[in-house]
Amino acid sequence: MSELAVTERTRHRRMRENGSVRRADLDAVLAAGFVCHLGVVVGGAPMVVPTVYGATADTLYFHGSVASRSLQQAAEAGAAGAAEMCVTVTHVDGLVLARSVFEHSVNYRCAMVYGVPRVLADEEKLEGLRVLSEQCAPGQWDYARRPNRKELAATTLLALDLAEASVKISVGPPDDGDGPDAELGLWAGNVPIRTVFDAPVATPDLADGITLPDHIAALRSV
Amino acid sequence: MSELAVTERTRHRRMRENGSVRRADLDAVLAAGFVCHLGVVVGGAPMVVPTVYGATADTLYFHGSVASRSLQQAAEAGAAGAAEMCVTVTHVDGLVLARSVFEHSVNYRCAMVYGVPRVLADEEKLEGLRVLSEQCAPGQWDYARRPNRKELAATTLLALDLAEASVKISVGPPDDGDGPDAELGLWAGNVPIRTVFDAPVATPDLADGITLPDHIAALRSV
Repeated sequence: MSELAVTERTRHRRMRENGSVRRADLDAVLAAGFVCHLGVVVGGAPMVVPTVYGATADTLYFHGSVASRSLQQAAEAGAAGAAEMCVTVTHVDGLVLARSVFEHSVNYRCAMVYGVPRVLADEEKLEGLRVLSEQCAPGQWDYARRPNRKELAATTLLALDLAEASVKISVGPPDDGDGPDAELGLWAGNVPIRTVFDAPVATPDLADGITLPDHIAALRSV
Repeated sequence: MSELAVTERTRHRRMRENGSVRRADLDAVLAAGFVCHLGVVVGGAPMVVPTVYGATADTLYFHGSVASRSLQQAAEAGAAGAAEMCVTVTHVDGLVLARSVFEHSVNYRCAMVYGVPRVLADEEKLEGLRVLSEQCAPGQWDYARRPNRKELAATTLLALDLAEASVKISVGPPDDGDGPDAELGLWAGNVPIRTVFDAPVATPDLADGITLPDHIAALRSV
């Protein structure tokens, strides 16, 4: 499916020119990060916690003890709606500096995924952990020691279908160059913002003779 | 007040060693960014949207049409709880690569602020916009054209007291160097992550002879 389904909550209300229904845009935004903000309802009030995630073509996997507590409360209360969650992934790409304060904005890419997540077990949990691990630190799943039975049991992993999602992308310079503000003689433009990975730092207690593996050296982006 | 009040929802449940109740830590986390994730409840379900913010010693100001819609719905429904919001500010500082997948984590600083925001008007709205503008792009409030009456009316600005907040900070290397995994001969450490501002890019329609002001050049962090 190359287009995202539009539902009541994924319909773009504001800044519609920034809204995208392209499935490829959703995939790209999700692939570009590894930390999401998870929104749950606890006792009727919202709670937003950052957590790590990994995404495949149809599923978003994420860590979440807060989420599982929320799911449990919802189940006990028999309130189906309370199990609904929203996972938001945002990349801040730049400041947009216009001639007027009012026209200032931020360039960004943002995906919001809605639904009731499933708590994973067994093989699916292991596969979800692999996806999540590979998204955060590609290569570590094959390099580091994998979870044993006890560690797997102590890990909460949830999965959300990528069935209901919305994407917004804002790029480019300010657009107040064709009005009276352009005559003010003020500088306008944008300041790109990037996330960079610096050189890996070995843990102080690393034994002698252990060299930095290529897949970790490759994380460096500067 | 140098310590944050601990309430039912700000009490640290997990990773307590990362929890902070130092007021100075909250201030520092809020000062270090300008994009937050705002959690609201809409029709019983959570919604998490990124938005810009600015903070003073006692107030968090943020943009939010979604928030104001949510407040309006709550008022109409007479449901006080539905007006509750959660504003989360997260800085991702690095990947923590341990010998085992299970011990992998992320270094981060995160602040969560809870409460029912106020919709601002008049002088307070203008002051909030100044705080927000100066946090996003220091110097622009004095340089760019300020909002006129019509623009002010078209802007929704909310304020949340910094009365109920929690902070978590995670730093340093992995801590699995004293167990059997240390004998695996695997590299372990952390990969620092930073957000950088690149060189400002002038808008293509900038008139000749307008130079980049110092306060915008100073944003560059590389």
